[in-house]
Amino acid sequence: MNEKILNPYYGELPESYLFSTIAKKIAAYKERNPGTEVISLGIGDVTSPLIPAVIEAMHKATDEMAQKATFRGYGPEQGYGFLREAVVRGEYAPRKVDISPDEIFISDGSKCDVANFQELFSADCRIAIPDPVYPVYLDSNIMAGRKKNIIFLPATAENDFQPELPEGGVDVIYLCSPNNPTGTVLSKETLTRFVEYALKNGALILFDAAYSAYIRDAALVHSIYEIPGAKECAVEFRSFSKTAGFTGVRCAVTAVPKELGKLRTMWLRRQTTKFNGVNYIVQRGAEAVYSESGIVQTKQVIDTYMANAARIRTALAECGFTVCGGQHAPYIWWKIEGWNNSFEFFDRLLETCAVAGTPGSGFGRCGEGFFRLTAFGDPERTKTALERIRNNLKSLRC
Amino acid sequence: MNEKILNPYYGELPESYLFSTIAKKIAAYKERNPGTEVISLGIGDVTSPLIPAVIEAMHKATDEMAQKATFRGYGPEQGYGFLREAVVRGEYAPRKVDISPDEIFISDGSKCDVANFQELFSADCRIAIPDPVYPVYLDSNIMAGRKKNIIFLPATAENDFQPELPEGGVDVIYLCSPNNPTGTVLSKETLTRFVEYALKNGALILFDAAYSAYIRDAALVHSIYEIPGAKECAVEFRSFSKTAGFTGVRCAVTAVPKELGKLRTMWLRRQTTKFNGVNYIVQRGAEAVYSESGIVQTKQVIDTYMANAARIRTALAECGFTVCGGQHAPYIWWKIEGWNNSFEFFDRLLETCAVAGTPGSGFGRCGEGFFRLTAFGDPERTKTALERIRNNLKSLRC
Repeated sequence: MNEKILNPYYGELPESYLFSTIAKKIAAYKERNPGTEVISLGIGDVTSPLIPAVIEAMHKATDEMAQKATFRGYGPEQGYGFLREAVVRGEYAPRKVDISPDEIFISDGSKCDVANFQELFSADCRIAIPDPVYPVYLDSNIMAGRKKNIIFLPATAENDFQPELPEGGVDVIYLCSPNNPTGTVLSKETLTRFVEYALKNGALILFDAAYSAYIRDAALVHSIYEIPGAKECAVEFRSFSKTAGFTGVRCAVTAVPKELGKLRTMWLRRQTTKFNGVNYIVQRGAEAVYSESGIVQTKQVIDTYMANAARIRTALAECGFTVCGGQHAPYIWWKIEGWNNSFEFFDRLLETCAVAGTPGSGFGRCGEGFFRLTAFGDPERTKTALERIRNNLKSLRC
Repeated sequence: MNEKILNPYYGELPESYLFSTIAKKIAAYKERNPGTEVISLGIGDVTSPLIPAVIEAMHKATDEMAQKATFRGYGPEQGYGFLREAVVRGEYAPRKVDISPDEIFISDGSKCDVANFQELFSADCRIAIPDPVYPVYLDSNIMAGRKKNIIFLPATAENDFQPELPEGGVDVIYLCSPNNPTGTVLSKETLTRFVEYALKNGALILFDAAYSAYIRDAALVHSIYEIPGAKECAVEFRSFSKTAGFTGVRCAVTAVPKELGKLRTMWLRRQTTKFNGVNYIVQRGAEAVYSESGIVQTKQVIDTYMANAARIRTALAECGFTVCGGQHAPYIWWKIEGWNNSFEFFDRLLETCAVAGTPGSGFGRCGEGFFRLTAFGDPERTKTALERIRNNLKSLRC
């Protein structure tokens, strides 16, 4: 095969996807230290089992698939009506947001949707991406040849991790709130500024709300559509991964309001052509997340994770570190004073404490000097990880 | 939102995805004729329930997801080792094809994979697509701006539906065998010619084998890797959709041999960045397709469908029509003598017989004058559909 036919832009990517790199480092450590138990507070993966309401719904749907009369083949690419209606009832109606089931698209993951959505834009459109942020926004745009069209919106301690408006014109703006990795919720003022900018400049906001279930304060913005005018300028991504432990089950929601006109039709066309809908059993499981018992059980799981988050915040603060996040998000953003290379800190933490986290610079240049811990661990193991950190403070200095 | 930022190539697509158009026509007919039962031999969707071996494996895996000790979060983007090994054992080893689990990628559907794979190629590479064929190859390349770079490889009655080699140089060649829609299996000679062409010209073959489980003659080619040299020039797509009734479950296999070097690394990078793996429960279900009972049960289902295929072939031949396919494929390619517009024939068949099929021209220009019926229907309903056709022969004339 002649390599000249290959997409040249893959050559502009960092060598491997951040979390693959980290998984390899941990695997290598484990091989060198077979007796040591590594505690990972790194990749944002959940550890609690699926809630009983979901399990029950999935068993029932599996049995339907075993009978000719109730078997389901291809489902609608956009998702079954029962789930799209449940999403509207469970996610939008309680916040008084007017989104209809027609504006909801069910997929097998927010990662796929946020990565695929850029296909709807021209190759030369100008993209703004917060820094630091989930690396998929950047990587998917580099793959599409837009590296030179990307500007970054720094979110640092100086601006309270609320990114500034882009200087100069941009066409597409990614936002993530609660932010991965900083754990910051974007304020109503910040979001209003971005919506006003988008409306004025004919730009589109891609709003990633994968962690909104972790917001503890009802007064904070849970959906971009709570901001007036957002339906004219924003697409929203929501996920069952962190809400209901679906990381290994795969189900997510993308809202494309009718006000976006052609964009909604194009996304429908994209999905009908390149995607074949989500597993029926999974959609019944996702529906059950919004049942009466599903809501209660989901809240219990999230409460457990948020107790971890509080534990991590407190322990690190007691050790004299500055931390943010972890109050309305499952991520704690740890300022690693004195370290200029967060990958070196990753190695040190792994070697001295057998604890894994995620180097801040993996999320962008402004993430340097920080380290991300997640609250998704088992409570006892998280406590052990924090003890190990407390007992090794000296060797964690640069 | 400024529409100037939108991907201009979506404007070059046919207005809607073929099967969506047809679904709408059927829905409209049903609304006008609420008392009439429409029998669809149209979209290639299965009707038999999942086999017991798969159901059992999925219940078991669901229970694992309910317990903390056995819960699984994010799985490997490439698929679990247990499934990749089962695929090698079940699909490749019996044909003496040397493919290793490292070369296997599990996804949520062949439609996604065949649509996404073109992302690995440069925008200006030259593409060859059989005509007629599954429309996703063409549409996904149009979306990527390659409309002007596409040449078609006619497969007609004149060449026994074995497409000719491209005239002039091309970089990527899609092939589908057994072909959707013609039901033709590409011969060893045809495939050898294409592999030799690819090796000589540095081209890549994308081989869609989604229907290979329907090949009844062991001497016919089931995998492109049975052809010497194919590992240096071909990617292969396989699916559980038609093999094991997974259209509503979603699981597929793509093989990218190590011999393809950088291409395999790029696909891995694509999948780790833009995809998050397949549902664990589904992967356990797919593994069970290759269990001892799974193999027996799967064969029974396919036998039922193939009895339908024989029934359709015989009935149409008895009515004096020319048909091909349906011997090693679930598709019957019906020559609709006298009709120059297969969409008009679709309407006539629906109006007079309440039977739906797929207009041949939906699969390409060379599909005009043909009509696709599928063998996936319930046997009794398929018989009824054939009776209706037999009783309305006069009105089916142009």
